[in-house]
Amino acid sequence: MKLLCLNGPNLNRLGKREPHIYGYETLDDVRENVRNLAASLGATVEFRQSNHEGVLVDWVHEAEDEKYDGIIFNPGAYTHTSIALHDAIAGISVPVIEVHISNIHKREAFRHHSYLAPACLGQICGLGTKGYELALRTFIEREN
Amino acid sequence: MKLLCLNGPNLNRLGKREPHIYGYETLDDVRENVRNLAASLGATVEFRQSNHEGVLVDWVHEAEDEKYDGIIFNPGAYTHTSIALHDAIAGISVPVIEVHISNIHKREAFRHHSYLAPACLGQICGLGTKGYELALRTFIEREN
Amino acid sequence: MKLLCLNGPNLNRLGKREPHIYGYETLDDVRENVRNLAASLGATVEFRQSNHEGVLVDWVHEAEDEKYDGIIFNPGAYTHTSIALHDAIAGISVPVIEVHISNIHKREAFRHHSYLAPACLGQICGLGTKGYELALRTFIEREN
Amino acid sequence: MKLLCLNGPNLNRLGKREPHIYGYETLDDVRENVRNLAASLGATVEFRQSNHEGVLVDWVHEAEDEKYDGIIFNPGAYTHTSIALHDAIAGISVPVIEVHISNIHKREAFRHHSYLAPACLGQICGLGTKGYELALRTFIEREN
Amino acid sequence: MKLLCLNGPNLNRLGKREPHIYGYETLDDVRENVRNLAASLGATVEFRQSNHEGVLVDWVHEAEDEKYDGIIFNPGAYTHTSIALHDAIAGISVPVIEVHISNIHKREAFRHHSYLAPACLGQICGLGTKGYELALRTFIEREN
Amino acid sequence: MKLLCLNGPNLNRLGKREPHIYGYETLDDVRENVRNLAASLGATVEFRQSNHEGVLVDWVHEAEDEKYDGIIFNPGAYTHTSIALHDAIAGISVPVIEVHISNIHKREAFRHHSYLAPACLGQICGLGTKGYELALRTFIEREN
Amino acid sequence: MKLLCLNGPNLNRLGKREPHIYGYETLDDVRENVRNLAASLGATVEFRQSNHEGVLVDWVHEAEDEKYDGIIFNPGAYTHTSIALHDAIAGISVPVIEVHISNIHKREAFRHHSYLAPACLGQICGLGTKGYELALRTFIEREN
Amino acid sequence: MKLLCLNGPNLNRLGKREPHIYGYETLDDVRENVRNLAASLGATVEFRQSNHEGVLVDWVHEAEDEKYDGIIFNPGAYTHTSIALHDAIAGISVPVIEVHISNIHKREAFRHHSYLAPACLGQICGLGTKGYELALRTFIEREN
Amino acid sequence: MKLLCLNGPNLNRLGKREPHIYGYETLDDVRENVRNLAASLGATVEFRQSNHEGVLVDWVHEAEDEKYDGIIFNPGAYTHTSIALHDAIAGISVPVIEVHISNIHKREAFRHHSYLAPACLGQICGLGTKGYELALRTFIEREN
Amino acid sequence: MKLLCLNGPNLNRLGKREPHIYGYETLDDVRENVRNLAASLGATVEFRQSNHEGVLVDWVHEAEDEKYDGIIFNPGAYTHTSIALHDAIAGISVPVIEVHISNIHKREAFRHHSYLAPACLGQICGLGTKGYELALRTFIEREN
Amino acid sequence: MKLLCLNGPNLNRLGKREPHIYGYETLDDVRENVRNLAASLGATVEFRQSNHEGVLVDWVHEAEDEKYDGIIFNPGAYTHTSIALHDAIAGISVPVIEVHISNIHKREAFRHHSYLAPACLGQICGLGTKGYELALRTFIEREN
Amino acid sequence: MKLLCLNGPNLNRLGKREPHIYGYETLDDVRENVRNLAASLGATVEFRQSNHEGVLVDWVHEAEDEKYDGIIFNPGAYTHTSIALHDAIAGISVPVIEVHISNIHKREAFRHHSYLAPACLGQICGLGTKGYELALRTFIEREN
Repeated sequence: MKLLCLNGPNLNRLGKREPHIYGYETLDDVRENVRNLAASLGATVEFRQSNHEGVLVDWVHEAEDEKYDGIIFNPGAYTHTSIALHDAIAGISVPVIEVHISNIHKREAFRHHSYLAPACLGQICGLGTKGYELALRTFIEREN
Repeated sequence: MKLLCLNGPNLNRLGKREPHIYGYETLDDVRENVRNLAASLGATVEFRQSNHEGVLVDWVHEAEDEKYDGIIFNPGAYTHTSIALHDAIAGISVPVIEVHISNIHKREAFRHHSYLAPACLGQICGLGTKGYELALRTFIEREN
Repeated sequence: MKLLCLNGPNLNRLGKREPHIYGYETLDDVRENVRNLAASLGATVEFRQSNHEGVLVDWVHEAEDEKYDGIIFNPGAYTHTSIALHDAIAGISVPVIEVHISNIHKREAFRHHSYLAPACLGQICGLGTKGYELALRTFIEREN
Repeated sequence: MKLLCLNGPNLNRLGKREPHIYGYETLDDVRENVRNLAASLGATVEFRQSNHEGVLVDWVHEAEDEKYDGIIFNPGAYTHTSIALHDAIAGISVPVIEVHISNIHKREAFRHHSYLAPACLGQICGLGTKGYELALRTFIEREN
Repeated sequence: MKLLCLNGPNLNRLGKREPHIYGYETLDDVRENVRNLAASLGATVEFRQSNHEGVLVDWVHEAEDEKYDGIIFNPGAYTHTSIALHDAIAGISVPVIEVHISNIHKREAFRHHSYLAPACLGQICGLGTKGYELALRTFIEREN
Repeated sequence: MKLLCLNGPNLNRLGKREPHIYGYETLDDVRENVRNLAASLGATVEFRQSNHEGVLVDWVHEAEDEKYDGIIFNPGAYTHTSIALHDAIAGISVPVIEVHISNIHKREAFRHHSYLAPACLGQICGLGTKGYELALRTFIEREN
Repeated sequence: MKLLCLNGPNLNRLGKREPHIYGYETLDDVRENVRNLAASLGATVEFRQSNHEGVLVDWVHEAEDEKYDGIIFNPGAYTHTSIALHDAIAGISVPVIEVHISNIHKREAFRHHSYLAPACLGQICGLGTKGYELALRTFIEREN
Repeated sequence: MKLLCLNGPNLNRLGKREPHIYGYETLDDVRENVRNLAASLGATVEFRQSNHEGVLVDWVHEAEDEKYDGIIFNPGAYTHTSIALHDAIAGISVPVIEVHISNIHKREAFRHHSYLAPACLGQICGLGTKGYELALRTFIEREN
Repeated sequence: MKLLCLNGPNLNRLGKREPHIYGYETLDDVRENVRNLAASLGATVEFRQSNHEGVLVDWVHEAEDEKYDGIIFNPGAYTHTSIALHDAIAGISVPVIEVHISNIHKREAFRHHSYLAPACLGQICGLGTKGYELALRTFIEREN
Repeated sequence: MKLLCLNGPNLNRLGKREPHIYGYETLDDVRENVRNLAASLGATVEFRQSNHEGVLVDWVHEAEDEKYDGIIFNPGAYTHTSIALHDAIAGISVPVIEVHISNIHKREAFRHHSYLAPACLGQICGLGTKGYELALRTFIEREN
Repeated sequence: MKLLCLNGPNLNRLGKREPHIYGYETLDDVRENVRNLAASLGATVEFRQSNHEGVLVDWVHEAEDEKYDGIIFNPGAYTHTSIALHDAIAGISVPVIEVHISNIHKREAFRHHSYLAPACLGQICGLGTKGYELALRTFIEREN
Repeated sequence: MKLLCLNGPNLNRLGKREPHIYGYETLDDVRENVRNLAASLGATVEFRQSNHEGVLVDWVHEAEDEKYDGIIFNPGAYTHTSIALHDAIAGISVPVIEVHISNIHKREAFRHHSYLAPACLGQICGLGTKGYELALRTFIEREN
């Protein structure tokens, strides 16, 4: 099982940015943890981050072309503004799980709506970086 | 670790009701799976279901009084209409994870908003009955 | 033909409550009339009333389990606030006709919307307690 | 008892238009059934159809001048856009029952609101062409 | 000076329809009064009424072609629903004064907005049938 | 007949302020014209202007105490923001006619709503300063 | 004078739940204080609490049947969601005063609207548990 | 190939009405051009115009009965207000292309929404009277 | 204890204005009653009324400078429109209780929202002029 | 005549993505067809596609600098979210025609609004990839 | 160069009122700083403050009559509620710069909209009392 | 002091694009002026422009990493659509001043809201390219 983990804008600054909201772990820490768990479960996870909506759209397309088995996607702020990402996800057959580190429903009203969610398999939010591992596990257990 | 799993209105009919949305597993099947996983992880899960908003409020209170370590809560339709449940959750110190079997963001607009989510730790939706197990795992791994 | 007639909150006070809106007949009078008409048409009607949303949800489930042929449902104020009842009705195969004694479109704006209507066969409003009899007749004539 | 049955735009195409919504009966079939029932109950029903809002307004006025005892009115799409018809109905003393063949609450949001309903005695929807007969019966039984 | 007075739906029933709102004068009475005043001021007023939106649009066009000096227009319910009439008025060079007998701002919310007003010279409402005479006077005094 | 003509904020600058909207007449010119017409019709008109909402409220009260027969009121921008003036007018028995020089329905959306209109007898707008004279005439002709 | 004091969902946890909002007094403390004040003023107050909307509806009906002179009602979260309670109150002749311990206007937007208030005599909020005593006093002084 | 070209309210005044928006061509000019192009492409186009919503509904029905191959429809102001026309189009099997001469998205907000568009094949706007020819060409090329 | 009682626009006409809403007591009667009660409880109350928003802002500032212990404030219509008064109250340390004689939740929708309430200690409405006395008592009992 | 054809996000996957909505033609097929038609009409069309909003903005600027005669623009999902593209188009003198393959008015509500349309010459939607050719033809025939 | 600096409601309490929002400087301090800077740049600034909307309207008019070269205007809460001030500014030829000490976009939603801004030259907010100096500088540098 | 000046989409075309709104100065002119002023005040300003949201996010991050003392940010159209930029600004400790050349409050409604403003120190708009200099000066004077 081969998974892709995509991370949207500002997630490159995880651990440095607003730690009272997002905690002190960096994206490298998350990658390390997710990859370790994946390895222990017999899967691989390719990790990527971009602040560019277009690059994220490109990567969603690649997931289809390169036959990934699933995408763990933390779209950051593009969650709330990108119909282009919605359409990219709706246009591929690879399943996507949307992950948010913070509980978006506790925050500003503009973070309560996700354009991507209706095109995804499901959504996990508020469970910290643990959410990435839960998504990973979901893909692996769905398989079986 | 002692967990409470609460299920709201119509979940007693799981497996019988709209299987194209909710699948064919019954709530008994879910309880069985969750309890087995809990046992394997050294935890217990008390399972309850009610169609009564007031009963669910009472049970949230009990979780505090009886010192549960966490609540896995699928509030069904009360997700979208119950401020009483929001207040019950906000008024206890036991953490709550909201679980939805279906992807509520793919369905009618009135299912997109959760009154409970801002009072919960986080939310998992669209991952089927697997969501209960992810919530369970989250409580256990948070502990460690 | 075996029908269930469910009545929601405050309908136990019919005849006593705001007679300029609801008239002077009591719910017992309505039951009497409906049962007489049913008898004359070769059907039976079980009459129930509750002020509890959860009890009404339970009864909708029972209609399925006890193989009723139809539900005549005056959901009172829960018409406008209960997604739980919408889901209960959507989850059974027994057809439901929604009945309102008063013309809800002439009253406060919050009475114009019905959460239940999209899950029901149809709706009758503003025709007084006669609406119950029309619903009864509809179930019987559909049969033929 | 002398009743008028008015039918709004596109109802001339009943049976031909979107039968998955409106069924296969034509308006002539409906007229036949309603007239037969009326005859059996000692009443007459004058049937009319127009695609013109102004003609429908004229006919509502005629109902008053020609002393009809009631109007069975399926206003079609003008239900949702015609204040002129609302005013015509509000300005006469003849009672009007609004009838819709389909369950308008299951359809597009713009069909959920009726401008006419607050001026009518009541509304019947979703019960197919049977709704016309229920309206007829209501006028006759009110009389007694 | 040659004026046209157009009257929209239901105004043919003035004096008969809801006299607590519109008073007891008939449209014939109004015509008589307006014509008398016009005569005394050296003008003529052509009076017309229709319940048909399309006919009113046609008449607005005629005002231009037949070189009327102004239109006194009580559009009745089409005030609130007719963009076609707005466009007809915006497309001619004859000035139009909108008149309402009742104070539309005291009534249902859907009567507060006029599609026609932005295309008219001005609007008079709530001053009873006297409003027609004020509009007439305005056209005549503008001339001088 | 003794009338009061009240003018709200910025009307002291009439003729100087935005003449493409309000024209070149000053408020003194208007007073002169209205008083002349009043004199010719056997009435008197007391003219006042204030930029202060509170002063306008005081003057509305005075109209009642000093037994004026009517108020011609151009409330300027307070039309759209003052509930205090609405309440003052609703609390007296003197009839009020609201006058606007410009056609408020052709302008910014925030000028389309009048808080005062529902408490007034009626409203005249878009007919220039002629609107004051029409209001005057209405009071006088109502008398007869 | 015989009064009924009803308390809605989560008020059983008063003193334990979110004390920064609701303070440290328990509902027992409040009952004690209210009853002492009542006794000193020659009245009795029956105290009840329920988390069940239906039970609260039942109790409102009982107030009428058992001839209470007034209801002091803190409906908790049902304030904002229960039309059933609105209708129950509107359907009895016993006057009701709505009491909120916290200032609901300082809190989340969904707490600013009360479905019950229009059916009550009045509302007291933000004055702590003192609000119950003010309501009590109001009933007693109205009597005299 | 036999096409019907329907034109809604005020289009009879094309060339005379607001030429800064609609240009100087008359509807006769447009008919001439469209017919010439049709002839050159081996098709015929029947041209009609009406200010009456009901007449347009009738004509849409005729298109079905008389087996037209397509409708080029410029519904004018009824675009934004007519659900009756939406239903007429949805109820026939003849494809319809909606055409607007002006760019409706550059104009008043009430012109941005089309009730008809969801029932049509597609929409062309802002390309002047050339839009009619594009629609014609589309029908012809679809055929091949 | 030294209290200030402020009264907003139109309250000078209490007893004369819309007595079916506000009753027959005048503001002088209220002052008399409140002062008598204050005296009996060992407090003084300074009574003021103004129709001017600015004067009310000035007085709120004075309450701070002159070390009043509390303000009983019936802001009349400024309740719904004055952010300036909100800011004045938020900017002082003197506690304010908002009082309304009528039940504002039973009246027009624009009276349901209070700009001042979030800056006040609490709000009392619908209990008639008795509300002033309850506010007074609250300040005195808070002290002890 | 030298035209630029710009294509926004996800159009690189045309033919692969949701063919029930967009059909089976690829963007290469479209380019081929459009270029052939252009050649036959004596024009050239430069074809580009990007998933990056910024790249599309850059290309719109280039159209001006490189003196293209027109832009055929299918902005994909950026239609509904990009004010940057609106501003880019509004800031050049090259005319732009917006093209959508599907009928955006039949789809999700968020696809009904175009930020770009008011800055474009016009819009064609729902006519499949034929829309590109119609736009091309429009530019060429405008020239003549 | 002669400038007028107007300050709206509650600014007389600057330094005393909510210093966590507005800082500890008083309005006298601001005047001192602004005047010193003005003097150093060869200009004079007249400083005024009022809590009265009407007085502020009067002063805006005076700026025109007394030939000021610009107005630095901190309208306080009237920013969000006063159309009268909008109209006063729109009606003079003196340019106005709106200044807010705090960042109004970080605060309550009702502070995000300014009625005055569209009539002003520009707006400065969130830069503390420094904003007054920036406005001053802008007027002086525009001159050169 | 080391400042970064970021410019969003379409600002590369300043002076060429819609000069009636933005003036004739180019971005190079602005850079020249700002740098000269900066030099005279002992500061340096790095100037950048991009049409890519992602690039702007990257640059905001760089400001933190490269220890800039402040950002002068004209985000162009991304002001109104980019939550990613809001989050980037909120996640760094470098203060940001938002600058708009035109008065965004005088323009289309979609330009009135800024997603970035709540994360910035403050905002300057409508003062032309002078706004950049005011922002520069603010950073320098804050320092002292």
